[in-house]
Amino acid sequence: MKINLLIISSLFFILSSFAQHPDSLTRYVNPFIGTQEMGHTFPGAVVPFGFVQLSPDTDTIPFSINGKYNPEVYRYCAGYQYDDPTIVGFSHTHFSGTGHSDLGDILLMPIVGNLQLNPGVSGNPASGYRSSYDKSSEMAAPGFYRVHLDEPGIDVELTATIRCGFHRYTFPKSDSSHIILDLDHGIYNYNGKVRWAYIKVISDSLVTGYRITSGWGRTRYIYFAMAFSKSFTSYGFQDEDPLSYKGFWRKFNQQDNFPELAGKKIRAHFDFSTASGEEILVKVGLSAVSMAGALDNLRAEIPSWDFDATRRKANRAWEGELQRIRIEASEEQKVIFYTALYHTLIHPSIYQDVSGKYRGIDTDVHQAYGFTNYTVFSLWDTYRALHPFLTLMYPARTSDMVNSMLAHFDQSPEKMLPVWSHHGNENWCMIGYHGVPVIADAMVKGIRGFDASKALNACITTATNKHYTGVTEYMELGFVPEDKISNSASITLEYAYDDFTLAQLSDAVAKKGMVTDMVKLYAFGKGEVFMKRSENFRNVFDTTVGFVRPRNSDGSWKEPFDPLNTHGQGFIEGNSWNYSYYIPQDVPAMIQLMGGEDRFIQHLDSLFTMHLDDAHFAETEDVTRVGLIGNYVHGNEPSHHVPYLYNWTSQPWKTQERVQQICQTMYRNASDGLCGNDDCGQMSAWYIFSALGFYPVCPGTTQYAIGSPMVREASISLGKGKTLILKVNRQHEEDIYIQSVEFNGVNLDAPFLEHAELLKGGTLIFNLGPK
Amino acid sequence: MKINLLIISSLFFILSSFAQHPDSLTRYVNPFIGTQEMGHTFPGAVVPFGFVQLSPDTDTIPFSINGKYNPEVYRYCAGYQYDDPTIVGFSHTHFSGTGHSDLGDILLMPIVGNLQLNPGVSGNPASGYRSSYDKSSEMAAPGFYRVHLDEPGIDVELTATIRCGFHRYTFPKSDSSHIILDLDHGIYNYNGKVRWAYIKVISDSLVTGYRITSGWGRTRYIYFAMAFSKSFTSYGFQDEDPLSYKGFWRKFNQQDNFPELAGKKIRAHFDFSTASGEEILVKVGLSAVSMAGALDNLRAEIPSWDFDATRRKANRAWEGELQRIRIEASEEQKVIFYTALYHTLIHPSIYQDVSGKYRGIDTDVHQAYGFTNYTVFSLWDTYRALHPFLTLMYPARTSDMVNSMLAHFDQSPEKMLPVWSHHGNENWCMIGYHGVPVIADAMVKGIRGFDASKALNACITTATNKHYTGVTEYMELGFVPEDKISNSASITLEYAYDDFTLAQLSDAVAKKGMVTDMVKLYAFGKGEVFMKRSENFRNVFDTTVGFVRPRNSDGSWKEPFDPLNTHGQGFIEGNSWNYSYYIPQDVPAMIQLMGGEDRFIQHLDSLFTMHLDDAHFAETEDVTRVGLIGNYVHGNEPSHHVPYLYNWTSQPWKTQERVQQICQTMYRNASDGLCGNDDCGQMSAWYIFSALGFYPVCPGTTQYAIGSPMVREASISLGKGKTLILKVNRQHEEDIYIQSVEFNGVNLDAPFLEHAELLKGGTLIFNLGPK
Repeated sequence: MKINLLIISSLFFILSSFAQHPDSLTRYVNPFIGTQEMGHTFPGAVVPFGFVQLSPDTDTIPFSINGKYNPEVYRYCAGYQYDDPTIVGFSHTHFSGTGHSDLGDILLMPIVGNLQLNPGVSGNPASGYRSSYDKSSEMAAPGFYRVHLDEPGIDVELTATIRCGFHRYTFPKSDSSHIILDLDHGIYNYNGKVRWAYIKVISDSLVTGYRITSGWGRTRYIYFAMAFSKSFTSYGFQDEDPLSYKGFWRKFNQQDNFPELAGKKIRAHFDFSTASGEEILVKVGLSAVSMAGALDNLRAEIPSWDFDATRRKANRAWEGELQRIRIEASEEQKVIFYTALYHTLIHPSIYQDVSGKYRGIDTDVHQAYGFTNYTVFSLWDTYRALHPFLTLMYPARTSDMVNSMLAHFDQSPEKMLPVWSHHGNENWCMIGYHGVPVIADAMVKGIRGFDASKALNACITTATNKHYTGVTEYMELGFVPEDKISNSASITLEYAYDDFTLAQLSDAVAKKGMVTDMVKLYAFGKGEVFMKRSENFRNVFDTTVGFVRPRNSDGSWKEPFDPLNTHGQGFIEGNSWNYSYYIPQDVPAMIQLMGGEDRFIQHLDSLFTMHLDDAHFAETEDVTRVGLIGNYVHGNEPSHHVPYLYNWTSQPWKTQERVQQICQTMYRNASDGLCGNDDCGQMSAWYIFSALGFYPVCPGTTQYAIGSPMVREASISLGKGKTLILKVNRQHEEDIYIQSVEFNGVNLDAPFLEHAELLKGGTLIFNLGPK
Repeated sequence: MKINLLIISSLFFILSSFAQHPDSLTRYVNPFIGTQEMGHTFPGAVVPFGFVQLSPDTDTIPFSINGKYNPEVYRYCAGYQYDDPTIVGFSHTHFSGTGHSDLGDILLMPIVGNLQLNPGVSGNPASGYRSSYDKSSEMAAPGFYRVHLDEPGIDVELTATIRCGFHRYTFPKSDSSHIILDLDHGIYNYNGKVRWAYIKVISDSLVTGYRITSGWGRTRYIYFAMAFSKSFTSYGFQDEDPLSYKGFWRKFNQQDNFPELAGKKIRAHFDFSTASGEEILVKVGLSAVSMAGALDNLRAEIPSWDFDATRRKANRAWEGELQRIRIEASEEQKVIFYTALYHTLIHPSIYQDVSGKYRGIDTDVHQAYGFTNYTVFSLWDTYRALHPFLTLMYPARTSDMVNSMLAHFDQSPEKMLPVWSHHGNENWCMIGYHGVPVIADAMVKGIRGFDASKALNACITTATNKHYTGVTEYMELGFVPEDKISNSASITLEYAYDDFTLAQLSDAVAKKGMVTDMVKLYAFGKGEVFMKRSENFRNVFDTTVGFVRPRNSDGSWKEPFDPLNTHGQGFIEGNSWNYSYYIPQDVPAMIQLMGGEDRFIQHLDSLFTMHLDDAHFAETEDVTRVGLIGNYVHGNEPSHHVPYLYNWTSQPWKTQERVQQICQTMYRNASDGLCGNDDCGQMSAWYIFSALGFYPVCPGTTQYAIGSPMVREASISLGKGKTLILKVNRQHEEDIYIQSVEFNGVNLDAPFLEHAELLKGGTLIFNLGPK
């Protein structure tokens, strides 16, 4: 059943692609990749870096039941599972690929017939209305989604701009057609998550409102303005919160045609008579600032009722981004590559009104002066490859993102750079202060447009901030002690890496023009301090067992210790086996700690070849079996640089082999084609880099490690008229091993590339052979 | 006991007054008048028309217990009852004199010792901390309040600016001194009323935050910024909401020294070591817009730490307003008069940041262009005398208030002028569309500075708005039918009066320059329509019984009918006896309906002389026994014009007698000196007019009815250099009857004055005699 659906859907996808220009690259994007099982991507409409992700929700299982966490909710991080039989509506905000969730704001659902709430499928009461849908009718492309809802017999088409969603519903003949607006619906929803909501009917075709939610984003404001192409003949509200105090509003019948309602659990219905095949269009502007802001966004971005024009514009926006990397590869590889590129360019998301106003981390409204504000920073994931990819390809956006992080720092009461932030909220998910490597990477790679002294100050203040997990102990002991703080070994390793990048930032600031001598002297001194801190990985590496292991505050090692059985015992999203390789800032030192090159290679080989039994697999978070090679876990980020570590030994061919293996087996053109959460594009960014033959093992430095490219040829527009041409010479598909690499006619003598060199453009030739 | 406290307190009040300039009028203000029993005034610090009312809360009994309304809460509409033995803290917003309530925002309480919550007095769990206080230490003056809290041994002094409160606490020696900030506390509070709250500690002496509450104001935002004169050494939070989902914030200990918290039931404590007699000052800026707005307000209004300077400035502001009416009268009468004047100038309150930004009725933030925005419109009460008083004395503020009402109209989804609005909320309390007479009164009295066409449109749209109670039926039947809508007779009478004033407004617009011929023609037509509607009082007057009585939609009179037993049966805050006089727009017609002059006089006499038995008294809302003369109920507004009705007969001396009687018995210099709710100054404004010898029986016309003055002499500054001098010639105190009235040397031939004449200034001489 699952396979059949997959084939049908793929078929439609290909058929629909034929309509496009033959040079089109958007036709290679299959937004369904990752929408089944662990990928947690969504198939709906979004534009590059857009605030709005308008997508179908197949279900929104509650986050908690009777106050207890409900693990089933995890499947619905993006609101959608490809093989679900029903759809509950179309909401405007979704994360792409996360492993915890929120959003699902402002759900619309067209229905026909009576307004009785559907009791739901399988006893799930989470949503009000639900319809089965025709899987063969479902089509998704960049900036567009289409489906036929069976039960009301309605065609639904969706497209989007940065801040708006655009719906086109084709109704059957009925004098009881309705469009439902559900302000209670949400992803990772629970009773009480919506703190307050408001609807205001301005005219018979314009409605505004907002809601304030709690949850992962503790205080999140979403305002909307919604325009209908056809006047509704009547409307009404439901407020399911029996406890809400109505005051003197009770003198009105607020259920029917009364123009406003405030409450906790609100739904509205807008009623129409429709002819057979009649289209009703709905444009929805979103804002985190105000209803007026949402309306301004709507007026600015969708001034007409031309759905197809908006769809074309969304497509062109994607086309423009995708065309920056033109590859030669098999059709299947192109689908995988361009879908990965598509998933790489969704987050961070623009987070400000067209006026430049945005809601800051302190919940107040701010004006972005001189930069565009972004949100959705899943930094523990994305500092590794996604941000380095943006640093390479999108220097202006990266500068904006750095400015956004600095504004966050300024506004945060904790004086912290973001950890995992979204929609004006810090959710504190995961560990480390990985805003630092993102800023350091931007700085050392020459990106400007932000105040470097301020950036340095923000990074230092963050890295010495005693509010944050274990920083006090880390600064005192040189490691985070497990008896006081869990995940201590992971945290220690990541702090040490972050500190290294902070030292690089300090050095870059010390050398920079346009800062005072005082700043330079200060930066130089701080560089030394943090370079020393970057050695702290040594404090958690037990050379007697050859692994990183958690340590107690008295200096003793935590007992017992089984490196395979340490997930949750000193480590997070990984075990000691995986994390012991997490010293990207000093791979030679790691090799020495592991007993020298030979033993290191042996050790690394065994990671890929050992058998992980079911008990240990069960402890691995967020991944499917296909995401494993032995004990190597591609679905979790701490492993992402690991295949490239052979480059620091005499056997870089093993890097080439493993990278090819991962690219070929763990990225597939299928709804379940991702082996773990895409994590806001980090998994996809890993693929893009690796498919192009190089990878940033240590962001914050300018070095890329060479792997083994998947593409036959590529042309990468680097901006400012510079182009990097990749050529891959090989006889057979099986030729995956590098014989030599030439850059602008010169043979490389080591398997590394320099950022500044790449930026100049030119030709990079990979000569591949069978061994 | 009660009496003793009163004497002591009055003594302190007088003693403290001695320090002031002998010409000072603020020394005559006793803010305790009305703070006991029914007055519902507050004793705390406020400046004229200020947004902040910083005042002690002696209790805040819950609005509801287990979901059921708790009638005890009514005593605490202003958070304070004079004879309560304890104080729970000092909050920044209070209504003056209302009969339903809200506010009590941002409570501070200084304590010493441990932070254990006090279980409260008499089992009332409403508040966290509570102290008995030394009644003899309590002192209140315009813009200033002082008390000594017994249990911690702390002196508290409070003063205020328009948007800020200023606290001075004198602590005993302690290493455990604390200032509590309670964001859960509120007036008319209930579990869940606070929808969301937030605290952000910016430094060791600056804290910001906000809360969003529901209740009477359905969605009310209050932001604050709070600066301490001394750095706190530590701080902490309590969040009593056990259901709140903490997310990854749980990795922090948010109770101690963590710089932010969001939640539903939040308290904070800020900790100090204090020397004996050490002062700690706290300045609190308020805003309905944002935390940044609150901080801007604070910086603008209290730039220094000079408490006494702020207190002096508040006093000067009051002095400036009070000096506009200088009277000669007994010392006791001066206290009553100037306290009434003080209570008249509290509401409406300025409701915008210093930047001009304010939160509108649609909950969005707006900018006030070209006017100052006001809130707290208790219009059913205040259209009668308070607004006419402001129209006379404060034309610029009145113009601002009209503009504020027009902005409300623009922003309201219902397209209604305010009914009873506060803090960006329409609470829909009471009946009628009495924004219309306020605007009409301003217009016919020559106030400009607002768009007259727009005002006319807003009034017409309001008066034909089918969302509002009974308007559909009223327009169809000419009356509101009791079988469909309760309070139907009261509503019909008030709509008819409002319609009359709308006709006056239409006529004024039709005659005005600066509007187009089209507008004039339109206004002229509408004047005729609403003049006709103003006759609708006839449809509920049953001439067979001589009373107004409720009617059913089939035209039949509601049975049974006992005019004394009709409160809640067709009438609100009054019975048929009281309401049958409510035809101020056409008193001659009313006299005819009642059977001609003789029978009318007889009827009116009996109102004042009949005995109201206890059963009927029990049905009278909001008043004490002292507020009655027979069945005349001064504590409720529908009666306020009634004593003046004799002026339309041959026996105006009865008006003079009754007005004197009311002034002398129902306004006293005592904490229980008001006989009913002061209702945002309406009761007090009645007194001011009456004490000066005239009263606006029919606002929306330019006529004042002459009564009998209480003052010996008065000098009223009318602005633009015009002064009205009142002289009262009499031999004895008992000379209360008017022999003649001269205005600028001319004897009046009827007991009425014209607004335009008064405005010219000059001398008005009342010659009083014993009969």
